[in-house]
Amino acid sequence: MNKYFEKLQPYLDKAMALQTARNLFEWDDQTLAPFEAADYTSKVVGILSDEYMKSLINDDVRKLLKKLQDEKEQEDLTDTQKAIIKELGKTYEQLESIPPEEYRAFNELASVSSRKWAKAKKDNKFDDFAPYLKQVIEYKKKFAGYRVKGDKKPYEVLLYDYEECFGIKELDTFFDKIKEDIIPLLKEVTKKAETIDKSYNYKNYDIQKQKEFCRFLSGYVGFDFNRGVIGESAHPFTMQLHNHDVRISDRYMEDNLESAMFSMIHESGHAIYEMNIDDSLTQTLVGTGASMGMHEAQSRFYENIIGRSTAFWEPIYEKLVETYPENLKDISLDHFIRGINKAAPSLIRTEADELSYPIHIIIRYEIEKMLFSEDVAVEDLPQIWNKKYQEYMGITPSDDTTGILQDTHWSWGEFGYFPSYAVGTAVASQIYAQMLEVMPIDEYLKQGNLTPIKEYLRDYIHKYGATKNTNQILKDVTGEEFNAEHYIKYLKDKYSRLYDL
Amino acid sequence: MNKYFEKLQPYLDKAMALQTARNLFEWDDQTLAPFEAADYTSKVVGILSDEYMKSLINDDVRKLLKKLQDEKEQEDLTDTQKAIIKELGKTYEQLESIPPEEYRAFNELASVSSRKWAKAKKDNKFDDFAPYLKQVIEYKKKFAGYRVKGDKKPYEVLLYDYEECFGIKELDTFFDKIKEDIIPLLKEVTKKAETIDKSYNYKNYDIQKQKEFCRFLSGYVGFDFNRGVIGESAHPFTMQLHNHDVRISDRYMEDNLESAMFSMIHESGHAIYEMNIDDSLTQTLVGTGASMGMHEAQSRFYENIIGRSTAFWEPIYEKLVETYPENLKDISLDHFIRGINKAAPSLIRTEADELSYPIHIIIRYEIEKMLFSEDVAVEDLPQIWNKKYQEYMGITPSDDTTGILQDTHWSWGEFGYFPSYAVGTAVASQIYAQMLEVMPIDEYLKQGNLTPIKEYLRDYIHKYGATKNTNQILKDVTGEEFNAEHYIKYLKDKYSRLYDL
Repeated sequence: MNKYFEKLQPYLDKAMALQTARNLFEWDDQTLAPFEAADYTSKVVGILSDEYMKSLINDDVRKLLKKLQDEKEQEDLTDTQKAIIKELGKTYEQLESIPPEEYRAFNELASVSSRKWAKAKKDNKFDDFAPYLKQVIEYKKKFAGYRVKGDKKPYEVLLYDYEECFGIKELDTFFDKIKEDIIPLLKEVTKKAETIDKSYNYKNYDIQKQKEFCRFLSGYVGFDFNRGVIGESAHPFTMQLHNHDVRISDRYMEDNLESAMFSMIHESGHAIYEMNIDDSLTQTLVGTGASMGMHEAQSRFYENIIGRSTAFWEPIYEKLVETYPENLKDISLDHFIRGINKAAPSLIRTEADELSYPIHIIIRYEIEKMLFSEDVAVEDLPQIWNKKYQEYMGITPSDDTTGILQDTHWSWGEFGYFPSYAVGTAVASQIYAQMLEVMPIDEYLKQGNLTPIKEYLRDYIHKYGATKNTNQILKDVTGEEFNAEHYIKYLKDKYSRLYDL
Repeated sequence: MNKYFEKLQPYLDKAMALQTARNLFEWDDQTLAPFEAADYTSKVVGILSDEYMKSLINDDVRKLLKKLQDEKEQEDLTDTQKAIIKELGKTYEQLESIPPEEYRAFNELASVSSRKWAKAKKDNKFDDFAPYLKQVIEYKKKFAGYRVKGDKKPYEVLLYDYEECFGIKELDTFFDKIKEDIIPLLKEVTKKAETIDKSYNYKNYDIQKQKEFCRFLSGYVGFDFNRGVIGESAHPFTMQLHNHDVRISDRYMEDNLESAMFSMIHESGHAIYEMNIDDSLTQTLVGTGASMGMHEAQSRFYENIIGRSTAFWEPIYEKLVETYPENLKDISLDHFIRGINKAAPSLIRTEADELSYPIHIIIRYEIEKMLFSEDVAVEDLPQIWNKKYQEYMGITPSDDTTGILQDTHWSWGEFGYFPSYAVGTAVASQIYAQMLEVMPIDEYLKQGNLTPIKEYLRDYIHKYGATKNTNQILKDVTGEEFNAEHYIKYLKDKYSRLYDL
């Protein structure tokens, strides 16, 4: 082994162990920890986080990284080691140029800001949150400024943190296409949406039975219970300790059948990705998904493309009806499929259907872009937000809670994150188009055999972890880099068919 | 604040954070983690353990400890800080004299040995385990040898690790009394045990209902659900992250009503101790129970002294009957109380009744003492074990699994641990005798009001954490140091009454 890499290894291992511990505390906090624990446990997590940073960012590692980035040393490295060095280089690029005291001050601010956001959302008062958001934006602008190189724009620095293949140019092109094709489609669909009955979804659904059915769904799509467990929390999420321990958590509502089911399929998609990363990569810096966008591609592939299709439900819909005969015995499979694909403009991103979802993202993207390139007053954000919802969706939020305050991301300074959701769905469509060429997906689904799908994704995407980026994966799998046409076609075909347009 | 202590603080905080993380991983491993996780997670826990050791045992801390042990510096310290320095001194005494490479080699051996033990127990083959046990004993002898000072014996060095107030002399005196008084009592009781019917206990008891009733019991005795959660595992245990997050785990069997209930009360006793340690001590080296013996005193006080009394069950037995009317409607409270206190010689320590329990401990203590002072061949242990069971209990194990192999402790090198169980019960009796003097315990129990009991234990014992040792606590609470007479009297009174002797 390369002698510099050998010296680097213990630092990486230590960082991995501390990161895994932080992940376990995060899982535990969301799913189990008692009410009073937080104040004391946060002291523990704070120390572990500091130690994590120290184990990666220090003079020894800095010197080793420099050496290992050298072309001559690179010849000595395995592909995985090269990918690890690249990833470590990104971490240094993100953190090195920011003065540690500013970074610490920002983290403290973010923690306060997120609490102020939660309170302001509850109280429906954007004004209470605005001063904190203002400071958060100022910090993020300053940090992005430190990191800007060449002809990149500050906002792009942030975008690349979540999805390195998508800058402003790529996203503008992508979102223009959506505006051109999907907004008119949504309008057409909306006119017909009233003809679709979904009242069955809001009847009384026993929680215990939901849990059992969701557990079944998770295993059905490919979640491996030898390598994972299922929990319960206020918001669904996925958390991995390594590829042999990947956890998903779901939320159950008595008066909504869909919510927990599709969250479970969605999180299972994330989990299947992490579970199928190669053993040789797990517990390294590249032992996780390639990017936010690629992760979201997996979860949305399972949730929407597979999970909301007729072929998927054909073998298992009867089981659902038998679970809730009192609510579903008169609801045909066709009726159910139209119900779970009902689309219409809406105010809340996380509850949006597949068709209106990207519009929610475009609105956030456009506002973020403005924030980082123009002098927008934070106080004007609710008005800007509401105007865009009216323009693109034809509806206006009646208050801040269901408008500008609905998402937590900005309160933490997570600017540049939202676009990766939309990118993910489009990436999923592109992969799906390719899969249709090489395997009879619908046949498999009708047989209840999802193994070939899981194996395909494992062999072409999952096993590589973060050793390739989104465009490299897309190129290797589909023969071309990102191409939004597949997404547009997928949505047009699907909704024309469902709505007889 | 003392400048040396101020410098020491970050090392202590780091060790605390790492220890808390290890505790969470341990809890998670036993209650939740998926089947395949262990191999990968153990790498994480190994690194966290190394870091824990490094944060406490290093040149900086060693120098600071030396300074702070100096009489002049001690004047500057608060009582809590003094106790922390004393505790840190103990850690150094335990580990400093052992060469690190031997310590590491031993830990690796212990890990292998415990797995060999589990397999040997399953296969009922002591011979497969003997070579590992032999090595473990050799290491422990060597380590104890390094640490022996003055006229102490090597075995005492180990005993003091678990209970610093009890050496060989104290334990010999204590156990001689038990042999003299309790073995004859057990014989008398055994003759009458057949007249006591306990068949109701082994009927079918729905697990979900057991869980609900056990949860009720836990809260009833004083477990605070704002500061703790309940889990499920192969063996009941208690694990704290700090005094605001204390977790208990129980095991449920469909054909045994008692097992989960009394385990739950027992673990709740441990948890109540940890939950009521003062906020100023938690997350420090003295922010836990005073000793193994004092901890076991709390759990057994709740489980046996309180939990198996008529007064305890009077207000809640009806609730239990209503939970399982099919099994209990014809079982009177008196019948039930005699059932849960049925005593007879037995082979398995963990399933033993209150009366025969200390005999199990005496056998182990006598064997451990022999191992560390005489040249006992490990191969002869099963025979020695069986002979002692015959001598003290009048019964002989039919195989290794229910004999010499039943406990895991020795496979980990935990010699000197067992006596603390017996000490704990005796300490509980002594505290109970004092409490009877100052409060109407039975009246409180009959009213279903356990708060005064919890508050007494909190104010006189729990809140002090490990700032006092067992004898200091006993002296402060009861006016005298450890006195086994209370225990003998408690057992004699109780069993004479129950069995009409």
